Amino acid sequence: MAEYKNQFQQLILDLKTNYIPSVSIDFVIFGFHDGQLKVLLLRWKGTDEWSLPGGRIRHEEDLQAAAYRSLNERTGLSEIFLQQFHTFGDVVRYINFSQQETLAKLGLPEDLASEVMGRDVSVGYYALVEFANVIPSPDFFTEECRWWDIDQIPPLLFDHNSMVTLALKTLRRQLSYQPIGYKLLPDKFTMPDLQQLYETILGQSLDRRNFQKRMLGYGILERLEERKTGGAHKAPYLYRFDKEKYQQALADETLFVG
Amino acid sequence: MAEYKNQFQQLILDLKTNYIPSVSIDFVIFGFHDGQLKVLLLRWKGTDEWSLPGGRIRHEEDLQAAAYRSLNERTGLSEIFLQQFHTFGDVVRYINFSQQETLAKLGLPEDLASEVMGRDVSVGYYALVEFANVIPSPDFFTEECRWWDIDQIPPLLFDHNSMVTLALKTLRRQLSYQPIGYKLLPDKFTMPDLQQLYETILGQSLDRRNFQKRMLGYGILERLEERKTGGAHKAPYLYRFDKEKYQQALADETLFVG
Repeated sequence: MAEYKNQFQQLILDLKTNYIPSVSIDFVIFGFHDGQLKVLLLRWKGTDEWSLPGGRIRHEEDLQAAAYRSLNERTGLSEIFLQQFHTFGDVVRYINFSQQETLAKLGLPEDLASEVMGRDVSVGYYALVEFANVIPSPDFFTEECRWWDIDQIPPLLFDHNSMVTLALKTLRRQLSYQPIGYKLLPDKFTMPDLQQLYETILGQSLDRRNFQKRMLGYGILERLEERKTGGAHKAPYLYRFDKEKYQQALADETLFVG
Repeated sequence: MAEYKNQFQQLILDLKTNYIPSVSIDFVIFGFHDGQLKVLLLRWKGTDEWSLPGGRIRHEEDLQAAAYRSLNERTGLSEIFLQQFHTFGDVVRYINFSQQETLAKLGLPEDLASEVMGRDVSVGYYALVEFANVIPSPDFFTEECRWWDIDQIPPLLFDHNSMVTLALKTLRRQLSYQPIGYKLLPDKFTMPDLQQLYETILGQSLDRRNFQKRMLGYGILERLEERKTGGAHKAPYLYRFDKEKYQQALADETLFVG
């Protein structure tokens, strides 16, 4: 325990020395797999309290670089679909979070709370990952990472429930002007694979013909000669994202508009 | 000048005492009037350097409250269309801004630069106002406020040009899922008035019939019995926003979707 307190003091020193104050990052990491949409949550040591993964910004580090670094620390993923969606700055963000109580449960001196848990403005990012590829790892304050079904998320610490709600709303809206799927689907995929990704995120089923027509209309998909094999039905075509056109569409945000 | 330096030291003391460090707010204030779209810029004292208006967050103040307060200080407006659009966190945001040089021009000691102009992560908000209603007032560092045509904006300090670009892009996209016009048009307005607002923001002309059909389809407009008088052509109907339905649509973000 002395060792643990010592680690905690080291952490505080590191934070005060190497990171800018008053600003944090929080991540809503959506995990997509086989028709399910989940969110990655962390359980605080010795408690049943869950929160989103977070991070902080080093002095000489760009915000976005800090986001990718922190996310990599939690998920092991480097190339990732990461999107800033909102910055949260209410004073009472911490209202449902008793620092003393939690630090006590963590076996840490209360008077250190203010050192490390002052008021932060937090920049919210959401990520979308194939959760089969993720190796989640907790941080200093937490001892468990778990994927939770989007519709079974428990009451979270801080203002994290509202972060999840707004992140999902933004992600769903984003489908209307940005392409999605690259790095989330295998290199070669079928139209039903892509449609399932969209339906999973939107939480509703889509008309097959309209979806295919729409998708092909963007000119970001390249149809391969080969077909998927081993299926019971007529083998569907395999597609691949035209990476260049995909990146262009991502930059232009021209998809689905008008 | 001694007086001025003294004011500056007071300002620094106030900043260090009453505001959270490392976080600032920047505003892209779009001014709409008679078919023109302009942006409000501030000129730094004794220089030809222009920047966006900004603000900071008090310790016991919500981010959004800080945004409204700061905007009111610069424009005199209280009820305003204000929207957070992105948070900017690059380390090199200040690269095209020589603090020493500017402070020298301001007649202020260079060694104070670091006190007040360290690295900030800045939360970007855009506002849309009827610029005939605005009474702009500069802050401590600036001596002139001017409305600039959207297509004639000079090279700005910091990363403010990219802020303007992204703000405009976001505002235009927002037209596709949120209503706009309330508080920007007179209480009673004609369909051409509303269309001109949209065309001004989008920077392109729209088909009259489709626009009217679309707008009426949202059910947020109430057509009045009276018509506009004094026009040369057939007097057009006057409309009014159904405030309740308007606010609902604003909350649901259902407009134009699907």
